[in-house]
Amino acid sequence: MSPEDLRKTAQQIIEAALEAVDPARAVKQALSLEGDRLSVAGQQVDLSAYKRIVAVGAGKAGAPMARALEEVLGDRLSEGRVVVKDGHTGATDKIAIEEASHPVPDQRGVDAGQRIAQLVIDNAAEDTLFFCLLSGGGSALLVAPVEGVSLADKQETTRLMLACGADIGEINAIRKHLSQLKGGNLARLAAPGKVISLIISDVVADRLDVIASGPTVPDHSSWQDCREILSRHGIWDKVPAPVRERIEAGLTGKIPDTLKPGDPELAGVINLIASNNRQAVDRAKAKASELGLTPLVLSTTIEGETKDIARMHAALASEALASGQPLAPPCCLISGGETTVNLGEEHGLGGRNQEFALAAALDLAGVEGVLAVSVGTDGTDGPTDAAGAWADGQTVERALTLGLKAGDFLARHDAYNFFEPLKDLIITGPTRTNVMDLRLILVAPA
Amino acid sequence: MSPEDLRKTAQQIIEAALEAVDPARAVKQALSLEGDRLSVAGQQVDLSAYKRIVAVGAGKAGAPMARALEEVLGDRLSEGRVVVKDGHTGATDKIAIEEASHPVPDQRGVDAGQRIAQLVIDNAAEDTLFFCLLSGGGSALLVAPVEGVSLADKQETTRLMLACGADIGEINAIRKHLSQLKGGNLARLAAPGKVISLIISDVVADRLDVIASGPTVPDHSSWQDCREILSRHGIWDKVPAPVRERIEAGLTGKIPDTLKPGDPELAGVINLIASNNRQAVDRAKAKASELGLTPLVLSTTIEGETKDIARMHAALASEALASGQPLAPPCCLISGGETTVNLGEEHGLGGRNQEFALAAALDLAGVEGVLAVSVGTDGTDGPTDAAGAWADGQTVERALTLGLKAGDFLARHDAYNFFEPLKDLIITGPTRTNVMDLRLILVAPA
Repeated sequence: MSPEDLRKTAQQIIEAALEAVDPARAVKQALSLEGDRLSVAGQQVDLSAYKRIVAVGAGKAGAPMARALEEVLGDRLSEGRVVVKDGHTGATDKIAIEEASHPVPDQRGVDAGQRIAQLVIDNAAEDTLFFCLLSGGGSALLVAPVEGVSLADKQETTRLMLACGADIGEINAIRKHLSQLKGGNLARLAAPGKVISLIISDVVADRLDVIASGPTVPDHSSWQDCREILSRHGIWDKVPAPVRERIEAGLTGKIPDTLKPGDPELAGVINLIASNNRQAVDRAKAKASELGLTPLVLSTTIEGETKDIARMHAALASEALASGQPLAPPCCLISGGETTVNLGEEHGLGGRNQEFALAAALDLAGVEGVLAVSVGTDGTDGPTDAAGAWADGQTVERALTLGLKAGDFLARHDAYNFFEPLKDLIITGPTRTNVMDLRLILVAPA
Repeated sequence: MSPEDLRKTAQQIIEAALEAVDPARAVKQALSLEGDRLSVAGQQVDLSAYKRIVAVGAGKAGAPMARALEEVLGDRLSEGRVVVKDGHTGATDKIAIEEASHPVPDQRGVDAGQRIAQLVIDNAAEDTLFFCLLSGGGSALLVAPVEGVSLADKQETTRLMLACGADIGEINAIRKHLSQLKGGNLARLAAPGKVISLIISDVVADRLDVIASGPTVPDHSSWQDCREILSRHGIWDKVPAPVRERIEAGLTGKIPDTLKPGDPELAGVINLIASNNRQAVDRAKAKASELGLTPLVLSTTIEGETKDIARMHAALASEALASGQPLAPPCCLISGGETTVNLGEEHGLGGRNQEFALAAALDLAGVEGVLAVSVGTDGTDGPTDAAGAWADGQTVERALTLGLKAGDFLARHDAYNFFEPLKDLIITGPTRTNVMDLRLILVAPA
């Protein structure tokens, strides 16, 4: 295929994959309503038993999830409140959508979190059915800090953790222990009401206790884990004193831990993964096949330092060209998951998907018939307006003609400023979903 | 399979793969002699045209390669001299084997290099046929520094480069520009004699100019590259002054560069890859299949930071268990290449293969039916007596019962001291070959 055809083909695969993880579609597929009988996750719920149906939630996919729930429930829905990332709002009827900052929480998030907590408290009764709509970004958006810890303390803690390359699971373990709603605490507030959580997974292996910091599931992280995570990343002495003091108080038994398995508040809770990375990857696989490329899914759970993960993807592509292994071209290697970028003290602008493409460009320099692309399914890669970037065998050379040295940009994690002048950024705008990242390596020499 | 069966199976695969890259076998397969007619790399060489046949060489596989060459040529062989790593010697007849230090060169290497250079100079004539036997480690072993640069200068430079995680290609670019024999200079000395180089490749993608620093091939690295490599790794100001001064002299045109394509001294040279990583990987693939595991070769050219490469291998194994992708168990993922370990200022004892196993152990903790193994085909992983290590889902827990925390050992790059008490090191002793590393992930739940 020509470079242009490779790119068009990849574009079609990405579009198909993103469509498959559309949040509204996910909610509608999860719920089946006949008369008063709601089928969800293989269970039957008799809606006539509930006087009130209340929706709460948080995450980038909140608005389309809320709208889809309104369409399914119609007049049965009483009211609701969902917090979404700035720019991720959408038209709804009964469910109020509030915008807040992500990935660093702000006061609007705190206010929204407080109102959501109050809505749950006000309706906590046996004849209330709560829907909890959770998606990626929910952790940062659903921010209701405990007394004694300020928003600024939480922000500084999150900033330090993102900067040192902590993974989302680690960040959420800390958040849960500083929150009124996370780590099962929302379910605690909702009891004795019934809770149905519909979840779009943005975490590796779909761990329920990690997604949106698990407001409706038991938590497996402990005070001891919090201590170890911060120490391991060398920031125990750097986080704000109130955070450190709370963890120390927890370690000495002065503050109770998050909700744990077997706690009675969790008895009536249904948690359902409505969409995840594997759906996107599987759709990409089918679409690649339709378009004449033999697909191979490597994994949906890839983590690790981005540039090294990119090198390994490139090595597989090179091997496919050299020996027809792991499979013969024309083919498409597909992977999902979420890598990290360990930033130095000073760094440029970018995100893990753009950095992936930049590192792949270096390893693929001069190779014909290969296209690498990495895209954040939420449409936002790092603190940029791009979702990802394209790279092929000509990328490094094309950049050189503009005076841009790929290796230098990679070394200072400045992929955005590398790809922007090349016009090789992928700009989708917010997709309003988040099932982590999708990476494709097309290998189809002319 | 039980953990024991997994390990036995992996052991058989490794043994088969190592046997396939036996250096003596490689030499004998490369050469076919009928009467005076030698077939090599598809070319015919009439031995009656040469009064003298002289063998030189360097590398860990030097002794068995020399012995095999003696067996092929018999009385036709005049004499020879080959330098090998300490402990890698072996019985030969006409070819003198000298031992020297590796990976840090020593005075014995310098002396041997000097004698080899002299042997070539003394025999450089149209009626001399040189065999050049090259294998992994040849760069450090064939050390004949140019005037003005001492062995200590070269040692310090190598030490700095290894410590900052420079890859073998980068290290060799520097070495060539400080050497009398590398970067095609041995071929320059041998002209107008004929040169047949038999090469066991220990570098990614079998780049001839990189293996043993390419004594008989044109060099693509320049003075400018030397400058950039040292700067990129932040050690330009740290290398000894004579090294810096020589590079600066080269940059200003005061010293000629290494041999370049088209130079007449290269006309009669035959370079043949007699064995490489792909042979080992392909044999592992066939053996895994024989033993009932569906094999998948990922790549023979994997580079990058070891612990992240290990994470990606583990993610593929987890995906195989979860969704039967990239292939359904029972299966065996196979990869080759050579990763790096970026050491901090202080670190423990280990090597990239042991570090791979340790990082994989962390990601596979608690997972049943998976075995990860990484082994250096030369039998020596880092500065240890181990070739690699085993890891499975029980490794982390077994270590904990001995008070060993896997994460801590990984953080300080101390894999040897982690696996040694577990008795999970792989000790083969020197195998006398080197085709980089072989990694297997067996996925075969009971």
